[in-house]
Amino acid sequence: MTVETLEAGTKTAETPEALVERIATEGRAAQRVLARMSDAQKAEALRAAAKALRSEEAAILEANAKDIAAGEEKGLSGAMLDRLRLDPERLAGIADAVEAVASLPDPVGQVIEESSRPNGLKMSRVRIPIGLIGIIYESRPNVTADAAALCLRSGNAALLRGGSEAVHSNHAIRAAFAKGLASAGIPEAAIQLVPTQDRAVVGAMLTAAGLIDMIVPRGGKSLVARVQSDARVPVLAHLDGINHTYVHADADEATAVDVAVNAKMRRTGICGAMETLLLDAQFPASAKVVAALIEAGCELRGDARARAIDSRILAATDEDWDTEYLEAILAVKVVDGLDAALDHIAAHSSGHTDVIITRDDAAAERFLAEVDSAIVMVNASSQFADGGEFGLGAEIGIATGRLHARGPVALEGLTTYKWQVRGTGQARP
Amino acid sequence: MTVETLEAGTKTAETPEALVERIATEGRAAQRVLARMSDAQKAEALRAAAKALRSEEAAILEANAKDIAAGEEKGLSGAMLDRLRLDPERLAGIADAVEAVASLPDPVGQVIEESSRPNGLKMSRVRIPIGLIGIIYESRPNVTADAAALCLRSGNAALLRGGSEAVHSNHAIRAAFAKGLASAGIPEAAIQLVPTQDRAVVGAMLTAAGLIDMIVPRGGKSLVARVQSDARVPVLAHLDGINHTYVHADADEATAVDVAVNAKMRRTGICGAMETLLLDAQFPASAKVVAALIEAGCELRGDARARAIDSRILAATDEDWDTEYLEAILAVKVVDGLDAALDHIAAHSSGHTDVIITRDDAAAERFLAEVDSAIVMVNASSQFADGGEFGLGAEIGIATGRLHARGPVALEGLTTYKWQVRGTGQARP
Repeated sequence: MTVETLEAGTKTAETPEALVERIATEGRAAQRVLARMSDAQKAEALRAAAKALRSEEAAILEANAKDIAAGEEKGLSGAMLDRLRLDPERLAGIADAVEAVASLPDPVGQVIEESSRPNGLKMSRVRIPIGLIGIIYESRPNVTADAAALCLRSGNAALLRGGSEAVHSNHAIRAAFAKGLASAGIPEAAIQLVPTQDRAVVGAMLTAAGLIDMIVPRGGKSLVARVQSDARVPVLAHLDGINHTYVHADADEATAVDVAVNAKMRRTGICGAMETLLLDAQFPASAKVVAALIEAGCELRGDARARAIDSRILAATDEDWDTEYLEAILAVKVVDGLDAALDHIAAHSSGHTDVIITRDDAAAERFLAEVDSAIVMVNASSQFADGGEFGLGAEIGIATGRLHARGPVALEGLTTYKWQVRGTGQARP
Repeated sequence: MTVETLEAGTKTAETPEALVERIATEGRAAQRVLARMSDAQKAEALRAAAKALRSEEAAILEANAKDIAAGEEKGLSGAMLDRLRLDPERLAGIADAVEAVASLPDPVGQVIEESSRPNGLKMSRVRIPIGLIGIIYESRPNVTADAAALCLRSGNAALLRGGSEAVHSNHAIRAAFAKGLASAGIPEAAIQLVPTQDRAVVGAMLTAAGLIDMIVPRGGKSLVARVQSDARVPVLAHLDGINHTYVHADADEATAVDVAVNAKMRRTGICGAMETLLLDAQFPASAKVVAALIEAGCELRGDARARAIDSRILAATDEDWDTEYLEAILAVKVVDGLDAALDHIAAHSSGHTDVIITRDDAAAERFLAEVDSAIVMVNASSQFADGGEFGLGAEIGIATGRLHARGPVALEGLTTYKWQVRGTGQARP
């Protein structure tokens, strides 16, 4: 099986594996150049890329118009067309975001720890880029620039594979970005876009162990599930965000109402949105929390005890406890105390973000210690689960795996380390 | 397909997947108990386990005698029988090692970083155990206690699968270890030995994503290769150690001789042994380094320019540049300067440990920066590649992958982190 690619106007045919090997090898070579560049050089290159995104506005918006026209013809939903659409303001936002990443501190070269051994050897663990990062994403063309900027800032090369709907936009953004990089002396292959939309190439990327060092999927659950199930390359991702907010017996009433409504209703479609509300049987103001959610426009689905609180709550099925709605629907359950809440969360959480509302410090600390999720919060909305809100300046994604990096992942999560050992002729006895 | 297991005297039959799911679920439940234990409790439990290893000496040595007898009958090599054999002194060494791990600082609970956001949210990243670690190893029974101790010290449960040759020894060591743990209130399932030697269970462990959090293979290259190729669970390992020592033009002569001979000949069978010597064409004392190696009993295989240095050097083939000999054989090549050395290492290193011998600081720093291996050294023997020598107190293994942990991995590499967020009722605007 071969795939056709369109590069520099000439069609070539090769297998998906050969294509991935070829472009990954180019990307790895470019990354070796990048790894030798200084903080200032990388920052300057990103500023040049942002400048090019602004100066190439006409070409990028023209390419985007083609995608929008094709999308309308294909009958894409209004929401999908909206995710796809660029205008001068959105493009300026993309360029601004690249400049913001340029201003973040460079993690590369940071000494994580140092020690001297009794034999005089000096040990240091030093941050280095991971290498070549594969980004597999769907219809949002801003990911092209966002992911490229984060990879480049941390000294990594990127191999981008965007959605078919955004193909013209992605190529135009990548071309402008690469022009900026080239003006700062960075090889264009540092940021590559897979030159075909053939889906077999995604499979070849997922199994390219040794060529691609890490894959970050950005998109819906079916994309992430496929990547997680097929990848032989390490994956940084979260499959879903089945996030719980537990209102403890000793919760402050106003906090419970405000945080619950915000956690569910501020934006229902993001991975940090609350999907299950656990109300302690001893919490006296459950009716107020429930009423506030319903009045904010949320559909509630509860167990029998929850339905006894408010007759507007619909009956939940077992499935509701494991559902990421991503809309104005919420599962509600009454639990008997902290242990029951911890048990429910252990059984049903997706390990993304779980929250306790309480004034009881001991209960809060037990929750923080015992809930085994990437993010655990006390008295705050789960919608804060975001790299920017965590002070990371940006994020490549949120990870719920257990190794390497968890929660919001930004530049540090795109690095690894090596050991440097400085001796004076030591031989091991 | 089902496997038979022998537990508590009753034979049961289940599929390998069902067996792994059952014991992994037990291990995970035990780990939740372990995760709540204090530093002092875990240390005390390990001291109790060490004590039990000493008090059960007779039972362990008797079990070991069975393995030795079976191994002799099977015609195992002398080297394999030696790896398998325990005596009072070796067993005391195993107990000592468990006590040494008990004395290492507990990484769990360590705050990696903290910050306060402008909205008052307090963020901290806190070290936690990874969860359930699978250890797949060969004939050395000491791994049973070593790996169990490191996992337990860092709050992880362990699922051990040792080699068939050591089955009686492993069960006796694990039984003693678990007896010690139980006396300190830790569930026996925190440290489990797979109750069958059926090889299909190894396959089931390797694909038990979500049940086993990480696999550490300990053994020869074929074991590690199988684990790396089949695993769907993250693997911490190195496949081989094709380690280079580059003698720069400006190397100190005595250092070059001492370090090269030590790096190759101190112990030829360890993963940190030098396998390729790169001699700079401008280094004036190459003949002395070569002679010292030959006189120490090493067979040298070189390219034409190396053979011109000493007629005792045999002709190398292309394969020699990619071979981990693990014996007294060394590939030798003459290179033209630092760049040629870096290119050779980039093409042939396995990413384990590479060394430069030089008095030139600029050359040393370029080598440290540009060689992309887990460990890079200046003027020191690659045989220092070891967790103990690095000051880690012990090691679960040496990793050459790019994510999570690299080089010698000890307790910190057996942990991950979570984000704890402490608020006072914040909702996201």
